[in-house]
Amino acid sequence: MTAQPRETFEARLRAIGETRYHDKHPFHSMLHGGQCTMTQVRAWVVNRYYYQSRIPMKDAAFLSRCTDPDLRRAWRSRIEDHDGGVAEGGGIRRWLKLAEAVGLDPVYVASTEGVLPATRFAVDAYVAFVREKPMLEAVAASLTELFAPKIHSQRIAGLLEHYAFADDAALSYFRTRLNEAPKDVAFGLAYVLDHADTLEKQDAAAAALTFKTDVLWSQLDALHSAYVTPARIPPGGWDGETGVRESAQYQGAAQ
Amino acid sequence: MTAQPRETFEARLRAIGETRYHDKHPFHSMLHGGQCTMTQVRAWVVNRYYYQSRIPMKDAAFLSRCTDPDLRRAWRSRIEDHDGGVAEGGGIRRWLKLAEAVGLDPVYVASTEGVLPATRFAVDAYVAFVREKPMLEAVAASLTELFAPKIHSQRIAGLLEHYAFADDAALSYFRTRLNEAPKDVAFGLAYVLDHADTLEKQDAAAAALTFKTDVLWSQLDALHSAYVTPARIPPGGWDGETGVRESAQYQGAAQ
Repeated sequence: MTAQPRETFEARLRAIGETRYHDKHPFHSMLHGGQCTMTQVRAWVVNRYYYQSRIPMKDAAFLSRCTDPDLRRAWRSRIEDHDGGVAEGGGIRRWLKLAEAVGLDPVYVASTEGVLPATRFAVDAYVAFVREKPMLEAVAASLTELFAPKIHSQRIAGLLEHYAFADDAALSYFRTRLNEAPKDVAFGLAYVLDHADTLEKQDAAAAALTFKTDVLWSQLDALHSAYVTPARIPPGGWDGETGVRESAQYQGAAQ
Repeated sequence: MTAQPRETFEARLRAIGETRYHDKHPFHSMLHGGQCTMTQVRAWVVNRYYYQSRIPMKDAAFLSRCTDPDLRRAWRSRIEDHDGGVAEGGGIRRWLKLAEAVGLDPVYVASTEGVLPATRFAVDAYVAFVREKPMLEAVAASLTELFAPKIHSQRIAGLLEHYAFADDAALSYFRTRLNEAPKDVAFGLAYVLDHADTLEKQDAAAAALTFKTDVLWSQLDALHSAYVTPARIPPGGWDGETGVRESAQYQGAAQ
């Protein structure tokens, strides 16, 4: 079977985001629409930290399989963007600033103790996917970044509008990603369009991107299942109180 | 069994280098003593490139298993040191400068086509070791850097003295490593001494360092077996001619 034309294939990839990206999940609407309680916001921050903390490991798994020094050099900035330097910077530290802003102890959040099992399974599945699958599929899975600028913009606007904790410092993770993501996604998209030169590879790349949307969706499903009425926090999941530093600033949404 | 005292354990690790490090291999003596033909020098450059090119993958494999962001941040400079930036720098590019200096086509060397199977197996075993073994053993295996400054200094002096191709540009890899290795080895040694807190872990760390000396020794064994009299280049191994750009400057040692 001949490969789809480049534009058709790109449109096919973009359509995956339009139907399956986690900006369609009800938890996202609750969050940026101001319908989340502070406990629900915190649960999102606690769980999403696990994803943030594993992204550099995912990208290192990619580098560990990459025999092309030029590709390694181009990809390495993703680790730098998330981990930052020895002393400062990086998405993980910015996420912990958000944790502090919502009244959580960043040491507790960084311990990943209260992370839901379903969050762990989904995120660990992504790291394993990148470690084990062909390079093309590993790159294709990263292309959810195509859809990220919109969700980050919505989060910034929605959080600023609806929650007292939200300010520029608290939301610096999202603002920084708006600057970082475009270079990554341009590189990744070009790689996938260039290397998926048969229909079989195009199908595999589309399946990889679909898999990644499942990884993201499952994390919001886990939050929704545990922290939205009727709540069913599983054994060991964050209980809504551990690691919280109460203060008057955490209001503006239903508690 | 109680752990050995810290100084005793460190001395044990250092003794491994004194008995097993590849500066004891006859090929090393030939090389820095000026007894290698240009073909033997080139065979070393061709094969050692494979090791250089896999070191960033080894360090990425380490990062991919490392859940501590601070440890990742400290370790990441190893990848940067070897791969360099998108446009310039890094040990791999400096090794290719050495390849050019000894009259080899750097594109051929970077292709890794003529690398001996035994070299591949040894190097790939190291990458797999770091991917699969406990973190302590992965770090301990890196401690051959403890013994590297001496061998790099001998190489710089010996190559400058005996070979017409050798100049500061050609040997920049070794000079740069003299500056980079100390920070890595100080970090790695402290990590191993701190984390090997039982005799069982100390034994495992010593075994890991011994394994790594085997990885290095095997590479020189493979060179010696294939390129030193009586030579037996295996099928597919570099033939002594491919990728060579002849010029009058490649003299000063027996051809």
